[in-house]
Amino acid sequence: MYTVAVDAMGGDFAPESPVRGSLRALREFEDISILLVGRKEAVAPLLGAENPRARVIDARDVITNHEPPVLAIRRKTDSSLVVALRLVKDGDAQALVSAGSTGAVMAGSLFRLNRIPGVERPAIAITVPTLGKPTLLLDAGANVDCAPETLVQFAAMGSAYAKSALGYPSPRVALVNIGEEAEKGNALTKAAHKLLSAPGRPFAFSGNIEARGIPLGEADVAVCDGFTGNILMKSMEGLSKAIFTMLKRELTSSLRGKIGGLLAADSFRRMKHAMNPDEVGGALMLGASQVVIKAHGNSSEFAFFSAIRQARAALEANVIRKIADTI
Amino acid sequence: MYTVAVDAMGGDFAPESPVRGSLRALREFEDISILLVGRKEAVAPLLGAENPRARVIDARDVITNHEPPVLAIRRKTDSSLVVALRLVKDGDAQALVSAGSTGAVMAGSLFRLNRIPGVERPAIAITVPTLGKPTLLLDAGANVDCAPETLVQFAAMGSAYAKSALGYPSPRVALVNIGEEAEKGNALTKAAHKLLSAPGRPFAFSGNIEARGIPLGEADVAVCDGFTGNILMKSMEGLSKAIFTMLKRELTSSLRGKIGGLLAADSFRRMKHAMNPDEVGGALMLGASQVVIKAHGNSSEFAFFSAIRQARAALEANVIRKIADTI
Repeated sequence: MYTVAVDAMGGDFAPESPVRGSLRALREFEDISILLVGRKEAVAPLLGAENPRARVIDARDVITNHEPPVLAIRRKTDSSLVVALRLVKDGDAQALVSAGSTGAVMAGSLFRLNRIPGVERPAIAITVPTLGKPTLLLDAGANVDCAPETLVQFAAMGSAYAKSALGYPSPRVALVNIGEEAEKGNALTKAAHKLLSAPGRPFAFSGNIEARGIPLGEADVAVCDGFTGNILMKSMEGLSKAIFTMLKRELTSSLRGKIGGLLAADSFRRMKHAMNPDEVGGALMLGASQVVIKAHGNSSEFAFFSAIRQARAALEANVIRKIADTI
Repeated sequence: MYTVAVDAMGGDFAPESPVRGSLRALREFEDISILLVGRKEAVAPLLGAENPRARVIDARDVITNHEPPVLAIRRKTDSSLVVALRLVKDGDAQALVSAGSTGAVMAGSLFRLNRIPGVERPAIAITVPTLGKPTLLLDAGANVDCAPETLVQFAAMGSAYAKSALGYPSPRVALVNIGEEAEKGNALTKAAHKLLSAPGRPFAFSGNIEARGIPLGEADVAVCDGFTGNILMKSMEGLSKAIFTMLKRELTSSLRGKIGGLLAADSFRRMKHAMNPDEVGGALMLGASQVVIKAHGNSSEFAFFSAIRQARAALEANVIRKIADTI
């Protein structure tokens, strides 16, 4: 039996989405129980009928997106996030799911949880939908300035996770760079390429990947500093929005387009579904000694369900142990 | 009368595309003449009837994508690119258009042309199609490691170009970063934000822009180091390809989808057209003391025509003078 602590006050649609997503996960998986952390009077009524595997843990405070993360984690000791972190640290739960402020979840994982021994800098890992199989991208924003050695740790952690939790038997780990040739890049990627290519690494380094190869699915694990990861992720998010907005505008500008759009509606839906990051769950804090999943701020019931499913998969695959063995 | 030197041997479809694009430009614009640089026996027959405003300048050699750019520029003194650069430097032409190796065009502009006095590092500027008006993005790859001061020069050059050649009366210049708040970013962007915000700058700094805002058209000029610019540009290129491939796959997987796709074909075409970087021309080498346009390697006749049109517009707007006055 796995216990997952869910921050019931985090995200744009809290507490409804986290509670409903939790209920769905409880129905789907019989081997999990959930601790819903938040204001009892807001959370409990949403739970409905008594559920032996769900419990509300009262926490009076809430951390918002508008406060400095480190300060908030330090001061708001009775916030849903900090209480949930405590439950995980004390062993009352094995995993945490939150859709709260990214900075706060990150700072909380850093300061309130232990790190896997040997890990210098935990990283945010996200699963990017691609034309092929999903790609694990890290770091997506935790460490904006990185040393080359740090990228080697990201490669090791990412490979261990992709192998154990995503089912990639021998993940191709690539370095995000501005050209495929070994000598291309800035100071960081040139140095990192040398280190990653060294013999005896606990991962299969496949060389550089250009940013264009990421959405095309050319790597299983893509490694970069957190600044680059954020740029990659956000530019794709923006372009996707731009394309679908433009498509809608174009299709509704003529009768032919309108009819065509209606007939093709299923195709568009399937496609949006395939490109939807919610499908593959939230971001992982790789390197923390417990499983921490940060769901998107605007997570729906389904996104919470996916994040909990992902937490369960990580626990089942014994990801933390695997990463510790690799580092 | 403006004279444009066209590298007739550069690009995947040379010499056909450069010559045909040049002929189209000559028909459209009566105030330009063109020097087509390349192997006489390959270029001249494509020109057809005598044209008083077109002349072939013989150059026996060609620089390929597969050789080290700096070395190639130094050694292949009779290559179409180096001869074209010489024509521009000697004043026989005022602008250069080439679809050859990016590295070679860049190295050639750096080593064979003068720099605008005061410019430390020339930058590659590209015009990105967005949901709104096009955005001038620089640096798109010339300087992978930048000092904060360099980004200030990019801002000044980009603003001067956007004002004079793109017709933005008061361009909003933004810094590409991982958050909108001033204190966000890596060491480079934090320092650059401070410098860009200083009073008395010859441009209107509008603060940070997240990568997601670029395709949505939230800035007129977006400034970043060349590594980040490459990541931005290439990730959007890849995602665009992924989305259209997936769309095609989805639409052809059912009869409904097929019919819908046929009816909506015009909408898709208009959209691809709107998103097509060829429409807005090639990349500019901003900071060189002459106008240099690097067209995409796979440039069509139309792309060459657009690049020549862009060169003419830059000359007409007296862009070099405007940048020199700003720096």
